[in-house]
Amino acid sequence: MTEPTAHPAGTAPGTAGPAAAPPVVVSTPEELSALRPSLGRIALVPTMGALHSGHRRLIAAARADADSVIVSIFVNPLQFGPGEDYQRYPRDLDADVAACAAEGVDVVFAPTVEVMYPGEQLVSVDPGPMGQVLEGEFRPGFFAGVLTVVAKLFHLVRPDTALFGQKDAQQLAVIRRMVRDLAFGITVLSIPTVRDPDGLATSSRNAYLSAEERTSALALSRALLAGADASVTGPIGILTAARAVLAEAEAATPPVAVDYLALVDPGTFGEVTGEYRGEAVLAVAARVGATRLIDNVPLTL
Amino acid sequence: MTEPTAHPAGTAPGTAGPAAAPPVVVSTPEELSALRPSLGRIALVPTMGALHSGHRRLIAAARADADSVIVSIFVNPLQFGPGEDYQRYPRDLDADVAACAAEGVDVVFAPTVEVMYPGEQLVSVDPGPMGQVLEGEFRPGFFAGVLTVVAKLFHLVRPDTALFGQKDAQQLAVIRRMVRDLAFGITVLSIPTVRDPDGLATSSRNAYLSAEERTSALALSRALLAGADASVTGPIGILTAARAVLAEAEAATPPVAVDYLALVDPGTFGEVTGEYRGEAVLAVAARVGATRLIDNVPLTL
Repeated sequence: MTEPTAHPAGTAPGTAGPAAAPPVVVSTPEELSALRPSLGRIALVPTMGALHSGHRRLIAAARADADSVIVSIFVNPLQFGPGEDYQRYPRDLDADVAACAAEGVDVVFAPTVEVMYPGEQLVSVDPGPMGQVLEGEFRPGFFAGVLTVVAKLFHLVRPDTALFGQKDAQQLAVIRRMVRDLAFGITVLSIPTVRDPDGLATSSRNAYLSAEERTSALALSRALLAGADASVTGPIGILTAARAVLAEAEAATPPVAVDYLALVDPGTFGEVTGEYRGEAVLAVAARVGATRLIDNVPLTL
Repeated sequence: MTEPTAHPAGTAPGTAGPAAAPPVVVSTPEELSALRPSLGRIALVPTMGALHSGHRRLIAAARADADSVIVSIFVNPLQFGPGEDYQRYPRDLDADVAACAAEGVDVVFAPTVEVMYPGEQLVSVDPGPMGQVLEGEFRPGFFAGVLTVVAKLFHLVRPDTALFGQKDAQQLAVIRRMVRDLAFGITVLSIPTVRDPDGLATSSRNAYLSAEERTSALALSRALLAGADASVTGPIGILTAARAVLAEAEAATPPVAVDYLALVDPGTFGEVTGEYRGEAVLAVAARVGATRLIDNVPLTL
């Protein structure tokens, strides 16, 4: 990905350059509509808030390709299943707006649940077969919830481009497919997964981890790295190498409970076989304590 | 079918007004995009072609509320089930363009199947429970097919308003719900059902009927009229009056085979009971020979 060193206001993100104007914070479609004519080419970064360095890199990439950057902050109830962490998902709008200000975001769109779902949501976006596997198998309804809220955000914001992290690789693939299949006319961009120095992929849910859990969780990125290192050996070799790391972690304290490890076509999220040649994604999902984590690396076969 | 007497250099429909410019006929999203900036406020009339007087009334209504009228003409394979009339559905682009010219349409968007469905359609719009009843029960997948193509047309055309006939009342209701639930920001307008002098609701499928079948088919509008006449008697009285007319038609030659007769809330298409007060729709579907027909009337309870 491009280094986000240059941008309209002249300062690099996260540096102590001249202060950018703080973002305009709006919460209704009407306020958004009123702003739109002044915004030029819009890049949208949809988020659930709890902004971390991954989001900040996304925002920096968004600035490179648009006149204005809009960050949406909305913890979307539709994409949480029963028993998932909707209630305890971290929410801190002031901190998020401050992070957006530091990145030169122009508009923060932070609607309430009542604004996004004013009545019963009867019509939704159906992700089809790509939404049934891997994350879709372990989180039924998740991708329908994601696509429905992203479609609504696209309609409300009307961006030219929208940015999503490679960290949520299946989400990115399903959103790309929605944009294509429903002819949204929006360019979807992504950036590589941002990792902490210890290798853990940045995620708002990392805040749930105790120090011991975090140590166990590092097995995810280690397993993916082991798989990537074995990429010349083909799918079976890749999966075997990654599984060996995960098997150790399943026996660790606290243990890592693996939901899946899969090597997939990044366009369809179908699992690839020994015959496959081209770009692939090695994806893993696991629970550590009460926290569910996902991670992936791109590979070339 | 309308007589295509008017033509690109011709006169306004049924009047001797000044000649309108013929519509620009385009078949790709790129051509549409190139035209858009010059069109001002756009009203879209989505059709499957085979334009009749009902469509012409829709187009006339569209003109009243926009700078430009775009008529889309696309026989959407996604909304036809196996064994339905996709192959034999009437197609005559020249006649349709002539009808559009006569109505002062600015742009005809007539894409091919390859343009609308360039790859496998994996992501679609799910109509939810409103799409499972009545037409949705007899035509599984119909409303998903309708909503998916309408969503794509909305994205490609980006209209300010879109017009659909009251004749397809459930389709209208499901589209209105999609526009609301997915926040399309498009105003959906409708016009009352246009009827031939004998009472038959105008429909492209009427062309399939033999003279004898058409005579039998008139029972649909007669039944609805009988129901409407009994509206003060409440739901049971309305349905009883309409069923009496249909029962006779079921014994006629050729017979009318009723799929359903239902009194529903026009917003949800849930059946209404004796307690219900407000706007309602009395809807009927039936087959006459190989032709399936639908009709409805609005009522106030």
